[in-house]
Amino acid sequence: MSRVRVHNFSVSLDGFGTGEGQSLEAPFGHAGHRLNEWFFATRTFQQMLGEPGGSTGVDDSFASKWGSGIGAEIMGRNKFEPVSGRPGETEWRGWWGEDPPFHTPVFVLTHQPRPSIEMAGGTTFHFIAASPAEALERAREAAGGLDVRIGGGPSTIRQFLAAGLIDHLHLVIVPIVLGRGERVWDGLEGLEQDFAVEAVSSPSGVTHVSFTRE
Amino acid sequence: MSRVRVHNFSVSLDGFGTGEGQSLEAPFGHAGHRLNEWFFATRTFQQMLGEPGGSTGVDDSFASKWGSGIGAEIMGRNKFEPVSGRPGETEWRGWWGEDPPFHTPVFVLTHQPRPSIEMAGGTTFHFIAASPAEALERAREAAGGLDVRIGGGPSTIRQFLAAGLIDHLHLVIVPIVLGRGERVWDGLEGLEQDFAVEAVSSPSGVTHVSFTRE
Repeated sequence: MSRVRVHNFSVSLDGFGTGEGQSLEAPFGHAGHRLNEWFFATRTFQQMLGEPGGSTGVDDSFASKWGSGIGAEIMGRNKFEPVSGRPGETEWRGWWGEDPPFHTPVFVLTHQPRPSIEMAGGTTFHFIAASPAEALERAREAAGGLDVRIGGGPSTIRQFLAAGLIDHLHLVIVPIVLGRGERVWDGLEGLEQDFAVEAVSSPSGVTHVSFTRE
Repeated sequence: MSRVRVHNFSVSLDGFGTGEGQSLEAPFGHAGHRLNEWFFATRTFQQMLGEPGGSTGVDDSFASKWGSGIGAEIMGRNKFEPVSGRPGETEWRGWWGEDPPFHTPVFVLTHQPRPSIEMAGGTTFHFIAASPAEALERAREAAGGLDVRIGGGPSTIRQFLAAGLIDHLHLVIVPIVLGRGERVWDGLEGLEQDFAVEAVSSPSGVTHVSFTRE
């Protein structure tokens, strides 16, 4: 059976997965890049940009696992496009340029389905109105036996966790107090009971926590 | 100048420092012992109980630092006594028996001051109605040049952090989703900006995070 995985999901000490006030200029709202600095510094991320260099330690070891064995991604609408300040819907083709780093079918959860968009490099965005379980069924079909990644944002990951659909969750605790934004843990009391949990800190200051279904 | 320190302060992934529903039988409410298992397992805690044994690794290295160089403690009323289900006030002498582990003056913040209680082993409980800054002044006088520990609970620590009075905060992230209880981080947005922050995980699964004022 293919697994359902979350990777590189940054959370602040106070449990926020993104900041307040997302816009075209500020994809993570008032959080800026603070939740993702550890990731941007890695070789894995630099390679996505086509750049040389990047760190190759603990953070990169975790970061690099995001793509291997993945046949499809599911993301929320707010990961695909900003809530406000963006150009007309028909023009918006995601944050990632013409050759997005996914290289698989990507299912975008939205209340307003629209025609799929085929990008370069094997990424196709499909826009579907579906429950988490329905979306997962679609994604599993498209993944051809490989794993499915739940790509975020926080509310999408929270919904899949609440529905008991996640097999592996890699979260990254960033030691900042964000104060406002989207809460990750609401409604998930006792989540850890179904998982084996490991934690390892990195010299960058973040801590990688793995939840693996038992 | 003496420093103001917090040690062994456990926080859940979702930012709760204790559970809901504290009582005589459940000092940490519905959290039970889940936030403190890492601490109870240490040699430092076993020695407080007068018991042999206990772990001597990363967790104990941090746990053991709580007493050294401390001349007084400040704690909230809810750390001293349960909100409900306790015997009459005059009978209650704390959770810790006749020889509490503090061995210094302890200032209990309460809206109902009452006569001090002198215990065995150098611990005296003083009950004062005071702001964090006023309480700290009292505690510093009593500490004779040594450091002052802020002993909790979560709302007391939060108030001292909000007032900018903490020099060193050792918090312990326990990888559980508590769901309910007393929130630690409310009103502390950007706290990390005034501190050097380090994190190190333990094989027990918890992560020790140190905030040291720069």
